[in-house]
Amino acid sequence: DYQMYCGETEISEQFIKLNVGGQRFMLRKETIRKRGVGRLLDLVNKPVVDSNADAFFSSTSEFYFERPPALFHIVYQFYLNDEYLASCCCAQQTDDDDEELEEQDKPNLFKTLKFGEIRRTIWNIIEEPASSGKAQVFAVFSVFFVLISISGLVLGSLPELQVASRQKNNLTGEEYVEMEPMPILGYIEYVCIVWFTVEYGLKMLVSAERSRTFRQLLNIIDLLAILPFIIEMLLLIFGISTEQLRDLKGAFLVIRILRVLRVIRVLKLGRYSSGLQMFGKTLKASFRQLGMMAMVVMTGVIFFSTLVYFLEKDEPGSKFHSIPAACWWCIVTMTTVGYGDLTPITVPGKLVATGAIACGVLVLALPITIIVDNFMKVAETERPAGGNRYRTSQYPSEPKATKSEQMVLKVA
Amino acid sequence: DYQMYCGETEISEQFIKLNVGGQRFMLRKETIRKRGVGRLLDLVNKPVVDSNADAFFSSTSEFYFERPPALFHIVYQFYLNDEYLASCCCAQQTDDDDEELEEQDKPNLFKTLKFGEIRRTIWNIIEEPASSGKAQVFAVFSVFFVLISISGLVLGSLPELQVASRQKNNLTGEEYVEMEPMPILGYIEYVCIVWFTVEYGLKMLVSAERSRTFRQLLNIIDLLAILPFIIEMLLLIFGISTEQLRDLKGAFLVIRILRVLRVIRVLKLGRYSSGLQMFGKTLKASFRQLGMMAMVVMTGVIFFSTLVYFLEKDEPGSKFHSIPAACWWCIVTMTTVGYGDLTPITVPGKLVATGAIACGVLVLALPITIIVDNFMKVAETERPAGGNRYRTSQYPSEPKATKSEQMVLKVA
Amino acid sequence: DYQMYCGETEISEQFIKLNVGGQRFMLRKETIRKRGVGRLLDLVNKPVVDSNADAFFSSTSEFYFERPPALFHIVYQFYLNDEYLASCCCAQQTDDDDEELEEQDKPNLFKTLKFGEIRRTIWNIIEEPASSGKAQVFAVFSVFFVLISISGLVLGSLPELQVASRQKNNLTGEEYVEMEPMPILGYIEYVCIVWFTVEYGLKMLVSAERSRTFRQLLNIIDLLAILPFIIEMLLLIFGISTEQLRDLKGAFLVIRILRVLRVIRVLKLGRYSSGLQMFGKTLKASFRQLGMMAMVVMTGVIFFSTLVYFLEKDEPGSKFHSIPAACWWCIVTMTTVGYGDLTPITVPGKLVATGAIACGVLVLALPITIIVDNFMKVAETERPAGGNRYRTSQYPSEPKATKSEQMVLKVA
Amino acid sequence: DYQMYCGETEISEQFIKLNVGGQRFMLRKETIRKRGVGRLLDLVNKPVVDSNADAFFSSTSEFYFERPPALFHIVYQFYLNDEYLASCCCAQQTDDDDEELEEQDKPNLFKTLKFGEIRRTIWNIIEEPASSGKAQVFAVFSVFFVLISISGLVLGSLPELQVASRQKNNLTGEEYVEMEPMPILGYIEYVCIVWFTVEYGLKMLVSAERSRTFRQLLNIIDLLAILPFIIEMLLLIFGISTEQLRDLKGAFLVIRILRVLRVIRVLKLGRYSSGLQMFGKTLKASFRQLGMMAMVVMTGVIFFSTLVYFLEKDEPGSKFHSIPAACWWCIVTMTTVGYGDLTPITVPGKLVATGAIACGVLVLALPITIIVDNFMKVAETERPAGGNRYRTSQYPSEPKATKSEQMVLKVA
Ligand SMILES: [K+]
Ligand SMILES: [K+]
Repeated sequence: DYQMYCGETEISEQFIKLNVGGQRFMLRKETIRKRGVGRLLDLVNKPVVDSNADAFFSSTSEFYFERPPALFHIVYQFYLNDEYLASCCCAQQTDDDDEELEEQDKPNLFKTLKFGEIRRTIWNIIEEPASSGKAQVFAVFSVFFVLISISGLVLGSLPELQVASRQKNNLTGEEYVEMEPMPILGYIEYVCIVWFTVEYGLKMLVSAERSRTFRQLLNIIDLLAILPFIIEMLLLIFGISTEQLRDLKGAFLVIRILRVLRVIRVLKLGRYSSGLQMFGKTLKASFRQLGMMAMVVMTGVIFFSTLVYFLEKDEPGSKFHSIPAACWWCIVTMTTVGYGDLTPITVPGKLVATGAIACGVLVLALPITIIVDNFMKVAETERPAGGNRYRTSQYPSEPKATKSEQMVLKVA
Repeated sequence: DYQMYCGETEISEQFIKLNVGGQRFMLRKETIRKRGVGRLLDLVNKPVVDSNADAFFSSTSEFYFERPPALFHIVYQFYLNDEYLASCCCAQQTDDDDEELEEQDKPNLFKTLKFGEIRRTIWNIIEEPASSGKAQVFAVFSVFFVLISISGLVLGSLPELQVASRQKNNLTGEEYVEMEPMPILGYIEYVCIVWFTVEYGLKMLVSAERSRTFRQLLNIIDLLAILPFIIEMLLLIFGISTEQLRDLKGAFLVIRILRVLRVIRVLKLGRYSSGLQMFGKTLKASFRQLGMMAMVVMTGVIFFSTLVYFLEKDEPGSKFHSIPAACWWCIVTMTTVGYGDLTPITVPGKLVATGAIACGVLVLALPITIIVDNFMKVAETERPAGGNRYRTSQYPSEPKATKSEQMVLKVA
Repeated sequence: DYQMYCGETEISEQFIKLNVGGQRFMLRKETIRKRGVGRLLDLVNKPVVDSNADAFFSSTSEFYFERPPALFHIVYQFYLNDEYLASCCCAQQTDDDDEELEEQDKPNLFKTLKFGEIRRTIWNIIEEPASSGKAQVFAVFSVFFVLISISGLVLGSLPELQVASRQKNNLTGEEYVEMEPMPILGYIEYVCIVWFTVEYGLKMLVSAERSRTFRQLLNIIDLLAILPFIIEMLLLIFGISTEQLRDLKGAFLVIRILRVLRVIRVLKLGRYSSGLQMFGKTLKASFRQLGMMAMVVMTGVIFFSTLVYFLEKDEPGSKFHSIPAACWWCIVTMTTVGYGDLTPITVPGKLVATGAIACGVLVLALPITIIVDNFMKVAETERPAGGNRYRTSQYPSEPKATKSEQMVLKVA
Repeated sequence: DYQMYCGETEISEQFIKLNVGGQRFMLRKETIRKRGVGRLLDLVNKPVVDSNADAFFSSTSEFYFERPPALFHIVYQFYLNDEYLASCCCAQQTDDDDEELEEQDKPNLFKTLKFGEIRRTIWNIIEEPASSGKAQVFAVFSVFFVLISISGLVLGSLPELQVASRQKNNLTGEEYVEMEPMPILGYIEYVCIVWFTVEYGLKMLVSAERSRTFRQLLNIIDLLAILPFIIEMLLLIFGISTEQLRDLKGAFLVIRILRVLRVIRVLKLGRYSSGLQMFGKTLKASFRQLGMMAMVVMTGVIFFSTLVYFLEKDEPGSKFHSIPAACWWCIVTMTTVGYGDLTPITVPGKLVATGAIACGVLVLALPITIIVDNFMKVAETERPAGGNRYRTSQYPSEPKATKSEQMVLKVA
C-alpha cells in the first residue's frame, strides 16, 4: 500500500491530523474507514462542522481533542485493529460474548414453539431471577429449599437427632439396630426433593432447546441431586423396596452411592453464589495449568512414595505397607498438611521426606500466579461494566484487563 | 462545545500552550477554569509576569515547565477531572476525607454546648494523644493499664499463680475446691477496670455527639471490656452476689460468657497499634472478597465433609461421627493445618481428602492477591503524606496509589 | 563519533526521518546499517519507491508508519542493539538458541557417518516424535511401557498382590518367608525393561554424537532405569545369582539400592510431559536462588535444632535424642508441615519453635517470587511462537517477556 | 525564578535543546549546572565540538542523542534531582553508600597509627578475602573451621558417638553417669575455638577503629561464639573448675546457657554466605513491617488463646491448662503448622479455632508482599553492578530498582 505524497494538500486529503492535548498524531482516512467504528469515523465521514472533536484548527487542519496525549496510543492501536491483541486478549471474551449472544437470542426461540408465550414466562421465572418480581420470589424459594435440604442432611448426621431403627436381614433373619435420622428430617427432605424435581421437570418441559439445557453443568447437578429420589420412585413403581435391596451385596453398594449422591445438592448453591461461579470459571480458565500441575504433583508423589516405601517398608512398626499407602503420606506431606498418621522413621526416609516437602512447596507455588491471574480476569468480568464497553471514542479501557493492567492503563 | 479556530491569535486567546521539558501541550483555558484548582489556574487568571511557570517564551506564547514531559499526562488527566478516575480510585478516599472533615469539624461542636471549653479539653486529652503533653501522658497510662490488665488475665490462668478456694454449692450444700487466681491479681484487675470505666464514662460524658461516639467500633469494644464489671456492680446494687448465681444453671452460663468477655480488652490494643488498625481497615476494604471466599470455603467444607462422612462413618474406629465433626476435619485439612486428630482411613475417603486439600490450596490462594492489594493501599494511606496532597502543580502522585502503581508512575 | 551538521540537506543525507503515527523520530543511517536486520534496513538500502513504509512525505523527507508512536521506543531500542538489554534479558535465550541450532544442525552430522541415512531414520523415530507417523507410534509405545512399568511397581507393593516366597539363608541355613510380588508382575517388568534396554541401546548405537547423547539428563535417567537389570544380567553372565548375594551384608545393601533405583523409571515420564519439562527448566533457571534459599534454610535448621536440642534433651520423655533428630523436627516445622511426631515441651523450647516457624514462613516466602518469575518466562517460551520471533519491523514483543511484561508492552 | 524570554537567541543562551531520537527536549543550563554531574554537564561547560552528543544540528542548535525518546524522562528526572524520588527510593541506598564510603576510607585510618602498615596487612587478610591470595587462604581456613566446629557440635549430640562419664555430686557425694561427646570431638572443638579466639583477638588488636569493629553485628556473633571458652578460661585462672560449679543451682543454669551459646557459631556462616546476608538485610529493611505483623499476630494469639482457654479449660482431659499453653496452640495453629498436640474438643472451641486459622492465613499473607519487595531490592543490590552506577548519560536504570521495576523501565 505504499504511496508517496509530495505536498501538504495531498497529505491533508489522505490523512487525518489530530492534536491530542497539544501533540500531533496522524492516521490514514482509509484505516479509519476500514475499522468502521469509533468517534474518529465522524471526522472522516461528516463535514468538519459536525465533527465531535473539541476544536478544529483550520490553519493546520488539525482536530483538537482535549485528552492526555500519552494515552492516545491505545486509541491508535484500536484503529489499527491489531490482530495480535485481538487473538491474545479477547479470545476468551469472544467465547463469552457468543454465549451472551445466544442467551439474548434464546427468548426468540420460544416464538416459534407451541404455547411459546407461557413457556417463555415460566422459563423466565425459573432461570432469570432479575426478570420479574415473581422470578425473584421463586429464586428466594429455591435458595431456601437448598439451604433447608442441606441443613436436613447435616442435622440428620448428628447422633443426637438420630433414632434407633430395628432392621432385619432378610437372608439370615438376623435383627440389628441401625441409627437413622429422625422422621421429621425425612419428611423435610421429601418436601425439598419434590420441589427440586418439580423445578427440574418444569425447566426441562418449557425449555426451548431441551438438549442444550440438559447438557449444562448446573442442570446436570440439578439432575444428580434428584437422581436418588427418582431411582427410588422407579424401584417403587416396579415393586422393589430399598429395604429388600439392602441385603444384596451389589445393590447395597448402589444404595450407598445413591446416599453419597445426596451431597450433590450442596453444589446447587453454585447457581446462587457469585463467588462459587467465579471460582468455577477460574478453574475452567486455568484448566491447562491445573492439568500440568497435577501431572507434576502426581509424578512427584509416585517418585517420592516409591522411594519412601522401599526405604521404610522393612522397619519394624512401619506403616508404609504399600506404595499407595505411601502416596497418601506423600500427598499429605507435599501439600504441607502433615497429619502425622504416617511419618518416616529411618534417616534415608527422612531425607526423602525433606525432598518431597521441598518439591511440594516449589510445585504448588508455581502455577498459583497464573491461576490467580485468571481469577483476577474473571473477577473483572463479573463487574457491571455498563455501556462502557463500546465507548471507543473515550479512551477505552482494554476489554477484560485485570486490575493491575488497568492501573498501568490509567497511568501509562 | 465544538469550535473552529482559524489563526494563531484565536488559538492563543482560547488555549494555554505549555512547553513541558521541550514538548508541547495544549489545554483550553475554559477547562482549567472549570477545574478551579491547581497551579495552571494562575496561568489563566494572573498576568504572565506573576505566573508560577519556570519561564515564558513570548515568541511562541508558551509557558515553560521544567518537568519530564512523559509524566505530564497525569496533570493533564487531573485537569480533565475524569469522572471514571474519580469514581474508581478515589471513592474510598472520599469516604475517608469525609470522616477527616467531620473529625476536623467536631471541635466546633463543643462551642455551642454547656461547659464547651472544659469538655473539649477533656475530649482532647482522652481522644487526641497528639494534641498536648497531658494527652500524651494519658495515652501512656491507657496503654499501661491495658497491658497490665492483659498480663493479669494471662498470669491468672497459670496454675502456679492460682490458689484453691473452697466453694459451697448453695442448693446441695456440697463443698468443692476451685482454683482461682491469686487475690493480688484480682485487685490489679479491679484497678484496671475502674480506670477503663472512668475513661469510658468521661468520654461519653464530654462527647459532643454522644450517639455517634457510642456507635464507634473502638468505643463498643471499650464498653464490652467493662460490661462484666458493670453487670456485677448492678447485681451488687440489687443485692445479688455472683456466688449465689453460680448454682442456677442459666445464670452460670451468663457468668461464663461474662468471664469470656474479659478477652475483649485485648482488642483495646487496636486503639494504640497502627498495625492492628491497618489490618482492620484491610479487612473492611476486602469485605466483599472475604465474603465470597468464605462462601466458597463453606460450600467446599460442606461438600467434602458430607462425602467423607458417608464414606468413613461405617468404618470401625472412625471418628467421623457426624457431618459437623467432618466439617472440623475439613476446615483443618483445607487450610493445611492438619492436626491429625481425625484422618480418613478408607481409600475413597483419602481420595476425597486429596480433593479437599487441592480445593483448599486453590481457594485460599485466589483472593489473597486482592486482599494484599487492599492492604498495600491502606498501608500507603497511613504514611504521613504532608502537604503533598494538593500539590497538583508538581507532578502529583495519584491519590492512594499502591507502591507498585507509584513505581509505574515514576517510571512511565 | 561526534559530528556537526549545519543544514537540512546534510541531516537528510545522514539520518532517516520517521513519522510514526504523526510523531517524529530520527535514527542515523549508520546505526541501522550496523544492526543489519529489520524493516528499517530497506529504507536505507532500497530506493524510496521500494521501501516498505506506509507512506513517504517528500516535503519533509519523512517515512510514515501507521503505528502507535508510544510503542516505537522498543523498535528504537532494537536498532541501538543495547548490550545491556542483550546480556540481561536474552542471555538465557542465547543458550537455548545455541541448543536449538545444534539440534537443527545435528541431522547433518549423520551425513558423514557410516550407515548415515539408516541411523538418522532410527534416531528420528526414537527422539523426534513429530517427525513421522512411525515416530508417533513409537512414542505412544514408549509412554505405554513407562506407564505399565510404573503400574507394575505400584501394584507389586500391594500386600493383596504379593505371594509368600520361601527363602533360605545360605550361610545359616535358616528358612524364612518373604513377601514378593506376583510372578505375572515380574514378567511384565521384564518385558518393559527389555523395551527400555532396546530403546536405550538403539539410541546410543545410532547417535551421531554418542558422548553428548550419553551425558544428557534424560538419557542418564534412561540408563539408571535399566541399570539394575543390566547389573543382574552381568552377574548372571559371571555365574552369580542375586539370591547368593543376599546373605553377604555389603552385597545386600547393593541389591537394596538397585531395587530403590527402579523408582527412577517414574522420571522417564519427564520426556513426555511438558509440565515436568517446564518444572525442570524452572528449577534449572532458579538454581542460584534455590541454592541460596537452601543455604539459609540449612543454617536456620542447624541453628534452631541445636537450640531446641540443648533446651529439650534433659526433659523426661523428650524425643530430641540428638541434633540430627532435632533437624528433622526443624525441617518439618519450618515448612509448616508439622507432623507432631516431635514437639517441644518446655517453655524455652516452644519459644525457639515459634522463632523457627517465623523464620521458616519468611525464608520460604522470599525466593518464591523469583522462582515464579522464572517459571513464567519458561512457560512463555513453551508457547508456539511461530514466525513471530524475527518480525522486528512489526512492533516485536520483547523476546521471552513474561505475561505481565507483555501486558505492559502492549499498553506502554 | 520566573523569567520571560522573547526571542530564539535568548532561549538558546539559557536553554539546552536536545534532540533525543527525533523528539525535542529542553532543559535550563542552570539546572544542569546545579546538578553538577552527568553527561549533559559537558554540553554546558565544554565547547560544542568537545561535547559527547552523537551529533549537533547547528541549524536548530540541537544536540542529537541516539536514544529512545520515551525513556529520556528518567534522565530528565535525574537532572531535576527530585527530592521526593531521592527521599523515597534512595534513602536506604544513601545509608549503604555512607557505609561503603566509610569502608573505603578506613584503610587510610591505619596511616596515622603505630605499626599502621602491618596492622593494615593483617586486617586485610582477616576481613577482606578479595584483597590477596593470603586473605583467600585465610577465608578458606575460617570457613573450614566453622564447618568443622558445627560438625563437631552435631556429631557430639549423637548417642552413638557419646561415652558414659562418671560424675560425682560434690555436695551429696552421689555418683551418677552422664553421656558426654567422645574426647576426640572435645579436642577438635578446642582447636576450633582457639582459632576463633585468635582470629577475633587479632582482628580487635589490629582494628583501626576498635569500638566500631566491636559493635558490628558479625563481630558480636564472633565474640559470643567464643564467650563460653573465654569464661571457662577465666574461671580456670581463678582456680574454679566447671565441675565444681555443676552442683550450685545458679551456676548450673549459667553453664547450661553457656552450652546453648555454642550454637551461635552456626551464625558465623553468615559472614561467608551471600544468601544469609541477603536474608539479614531483607529482615533489616522490613523491620517496621515485621514489627507490625508481630503486633497483629501477638494480639490475635492472645485474643484467640484466651477465648479457647476459657471455652476448653473445664473439659475433662483438656490440655489447655493455662493461657500461655493455649498461646502455644494458637501460634502452631495460626501459622498452619498444626502439630496436633493440643486440639480443641468443644464445638465453641472449634469455632474459635476456625477463626484463629482464618486470621492466621490472612495476617501472614499481608506483609509478605512488602517483605518480598524488600528482598528483591536487596537481591538487585547484590549483583555486580560494575561502573553502571553513575553512568547517567546512558539511560541509567533507577538505582535499586527491583526486577519488575527494571522490566517496566526497559519497556516504558
Ligand atoms: K500443617
Ligand atoms: K500437621
